[in-house]
Amino acid sequence: MSQIRHALTTKREDDFSKWYQEVIGAADMAEESGVRGCMVIKPWGYGIWERIQRLMDDRIKAAGVSNCYFPLFIPLANFTREAEHVEGFAKEMAVVTHHRLIADGKGGLIPDPEAKLEEPLVVRPTSETIIGDAMARWVQSWRDLPLLTNQWANVVRWEMRTRMFLRTSEFLWQEGHTAHETREHALAETHRALEMYRACAEDDLALPVIAGEKPENERFPGAVETWSIEAMMQDGKALQAGTSHYLGTNFAHAAGIQFQDREGKQQFCHTTSWGVSTRLIGGVIMTHGDDDGLRVPPAIAPHQIVILPMLREAPEDAELIAYCETVRAALASQTALGERVRVLLDVKPGKAAAKRWDWVRKGAPIIIEVGPRDMAEGKIAVLRRDRLWNTANGKPAFAYPAHGAFAGEAGAMLEAIQTGLYEEARARRDANITRGVTEWQAVTEHFENGGKYPGWVEVEWAKPTGAALEAVVEKLKAAKLTIRNVPRGSDAATGSCIFSGEPASERILVARAY
Amino acid sequence: MSQIRHALTTKREDDFSKWYQEVIGAADMAEESGVRGCMVIKPWGYGIWERIQRLMDDRIKAAGVSNCYFPLFIPLANFTREAEHVEGFAKEMAVVTHHRLIADGKGGLIPDPEAKLEEPLVVRPTSETIIGDAMARWVQSWRDLPLLTNQWANVVRWEMRTRMFLRTSEFLWQEGHTAHETREHALAETHRALEMYRACAEDDLALPVIAGEKPENERFPGAVETWSIEAMMQDGKALQAGTSHYLGTNFAHAAGIQFQDREGKQQFCHTTSWGVSTRLIGGVIMTHGDDDGLRVPPAIAPHQIVILPMLREAPEDAELIAYCETVRAALASQTALGERVRVLLDVKPGKAAAKRWDWVRKGAPIIIEVGPRDMAEGKIAVLRRDRLWNTANGKPAFAYPAHGAFAGEAGAMLEAIQTGLYEEARARRDANITRGVTEWQAVTEHFENGGKYPGWVEVEWAKPTGAALEAVVEKLKAAKLTIRNVPRGSDAATGSCIFSGEPASERILVARAY
Repeated sequence: MSQIRHALTTKREDDFSKWYQEVIGAADMAEESGVRGCMVIKPWGYGIWERIQRLMDDRIKAAGVSNCYFPLFIPLANFTREAEHVEGFAKEMAVVTHHRLIADGKGGLIPDPEAKLEEPLVVRPTSETIIGDAMARWVQSWRDLPLLTNQWANVVRWEMRTRMFLRTSEFLWQEGHTAHETREHALAETHRALEMYRACAEDDLALPVIAGEKPENERFPGAVETWSIEAMMQDGKALQAGTSHYLGTNFAHAAGIQFQDREGKQQFCHTTSWGVSTRLIGGVIMTHGDDDGLRVPPAIAPHQIVILPMLREAPEDAELIAYCETVRAALASQTALGERVRVLLDVKPGKAAAKRWDWVRKGAPIIIEVGPRDMAEGKIAVLRRDRLWNTANGKPAFAYPAHGAFAGEAGAMLEAIQTGLYEEARARRDANITRGVTEWQAVTEHFENGGKYPGWVEVEWAKPTGAALEAVVEKLKAAKLTIRNVPRGSDAATGSCIFSGEPASERILVARAY
Repeated sequence: MSQIRHALTTKREDDFSKWYQEVIGAADMAEESGVRGCMVIKPWGYGIWERIQRLMDDRIKAAGVSNCYFPLFIPLANFTREAEHVEGFAKEMAVVTHHRLIADGKGGLIPDPEAKLEEPLVVRPTSETIIGDAMARWVQSWRDLPLLTNQWANVVRWEMRTRMFLRTSEFLWQEGHTAHETREHALAETHRALEMYRACAEDDLALPVIAGEKPENERFPGAVETWSIEAMMQDGKALQAGTSHYLGTNFAHAAGIQFQDREGKQQFCHTTSWGVSTRLIGGVIMTHGDDDGLRVPPAIAPHQIVILPMLREAPEDAELIAYCETVRAALASQTALGERVRVLLDVKPGKAAAKRWDWVRKGAPIIIEVGPRDMAEGKIAVLRRDRLWNTANGKPAFAYPAHGAFAGEAGAMLEAIQTGLYEEARARRDANITRGVTEWQAVTEHFENGGKYPGWVEVEWAKPTGAALEAVVEKLKAAKLTIRNVPRGSDAATGSCIFSGEPASERILVARAY
């Protein structure tokens, strides 16, 4: 078998973290901005985010949720109202204290001492408190409920250690905020959002996820219940890919969100919030990337098919481009995954082979090359990004169909790539969850000796609270482990709590995490 | 003629400014947030913005411009590099000085003195300087040019007097930023963006605009040329609805955006920037609103047709809703303005008549009411928002077509409404531009005595610079007037400068402005 010369320098198995950084650069998705903890999202990375936005927004709107926009700045006082919330968020936030700059007399600028704000403003780390203020104005009666809002926005959390897409000081997200008459209605919305996230992650991003409830110690500050979807990266670590919170009446009490119920009594609303962020893109990279770069699932690929004419910077190019345009138009009239196929005819200067590798690293699902001889024969050279190599000869596995015949197959091929990426990730995830471990020492040994990618371990516990939970958290911390969630719909516990030996009440997933 | 009872309390002619605020409330578009200068954009206002975004973004992408995302925070040092830019912007900006809060011991929070930033960060008022840093990294050779980027983002300018949509401390916009090899290429891009804005304003927002160059004193800080589109509001004032700047090599010098040209020499890029904002929504209100509320041009209406079943909270409602759903589906399968018709079947509780007036105030282009008798007869009651009243009897001008026949006409009706709104605004604008005034005193008298809505005046001038321009600006200021722009493609000047008496070189539009 010939040696394959992969398109990246770093292999996943050699240094997963370095590989991740290399993919982001090689696929031209993002870069450090020079502003602490903030990245620049470049066209390919942002194009993927636009696709995720579009698909998620369709799901959000289909659920009857309305998009709004709320202020970037939150008065300090809002944070002091919900005790747990301030505890969880007040630590690392960007604080605006002045509204003007003046010359410092040395060629620089300083905040104008005359323009100090009476009350500093916080750049939103999340918007429960400011949206709570609006809800308090908007809700009067049970007839105003449910109130279903969402915003697409930037938020800032002053992170000490940042990693592109996964943890940046500023990031982009959507945050849904809803208010309801009863606990039952709010819980139903919490689960609707969770299920929407699962469906979007699995169907659109091809990310297999496990939906479940977070343990008490991992709850959102101020929440009564926090649910998450968890995805397994190729290094076996977990990535929290979305969360949905039932907030009880905590934020309603803090902001005064009250309504007159059907019996005429004043009641506090039950609220929820739920969000996913640009972090999802990090999850896509670490799930679908390979040693040749990224592989973008077709549903979220800005271009699903890229056509590269083999240009010679000569007059004959015009005819070749015209032929490629015919190919493009035929493909663009096809349908895949319920939408028109997105095709790019890339006529930028440069050798087709060099451009091919650029698109391989970016992860375009299908790459088509067309040279003068192909044109003469009515053919095209087709490369599937998910089946890149002919392992027999170590060369790219091109197929050479007639272009007319291929147009009819392109939609199905894109759908097969989408399904294939999901199935591959799902099989890997399932193969890397270890079950039936009953001793804590066996768990720590599993993670110490389980090879580079020990995956996740499912254990049973008695759902401790208070001091007992704190002791468990300490144990986990010592082993650099976290509880991901209690998988929704998992089998009942049958044994003893791995921590206390008491009869277990539920199953939990334990893992290293991003 | 019967008296029409309009749906708003305030009439435009009584108090235009109060009317504007009332429309925003009555159409449920936005409200003050409680955070200084920041508004909450509510679903109907945000839905209109989403439509504008979608249509503008399609135009931006069609021009080969790629969306990116750049940091919210800009280091202070960036502002000191371009002298005019800092002069123009450094005055009123939000400055982040701390990255953590701590308890103040009195139940409140204060910025943690231990967490003071070494260099304060500015919340972007515009992104030329931070995007310039990225361009300097991205551009090496002429082969990297043109570099065409855009971002959709929030920006903050600390405004002293704010007015919803027109001038808020935080607002939403898109900002295009491009870099080119030559002055000619950059100027061509400046004009392409300007023309894109004109087309989007006129074709999508039904806002007639005059595109032209701003005089020197109205240029964007750091720009060599600033071009704008100007729209006339119903009170005759001008609204700058979009700007496109040729920045020369000023920002390239400041950020070091250099490239190796085709001869191998290092050159500075010529850059451009261009933007439109949520301010456009203010322009739509003040152009198309009437004494019954807003009238949304169909191209940017979140719902183009709203169907209101006359529900009785009784079992028969189910049958009526099913009938309305048939009507909805038939309408939603139609096409108008190149897209599928957007139809809402509004089954929220409430009387159909009360809901009708809500939708009139919101300005849905077509409102359909359906009662049990209509259903029995296969008919619907259709109300065109742009022809709301039967002036003979002072009642809403309903038509009662068979629903099947109406479906086939709905697309054309929406297109007629779109065109009608544009033509109405254009005729009003054209009727309110006064030409041929040659004495400055006549101009000031026109604005003092020209009635409530004196519109705009076109005069000729000799394009003064330096001290002469400053004197002109003082004269304008004294009369509360501004120069809007030098209309693109206007006739050559034929007379004398209205200020200096010298031979005039061009025509300018003078107006009061938002």
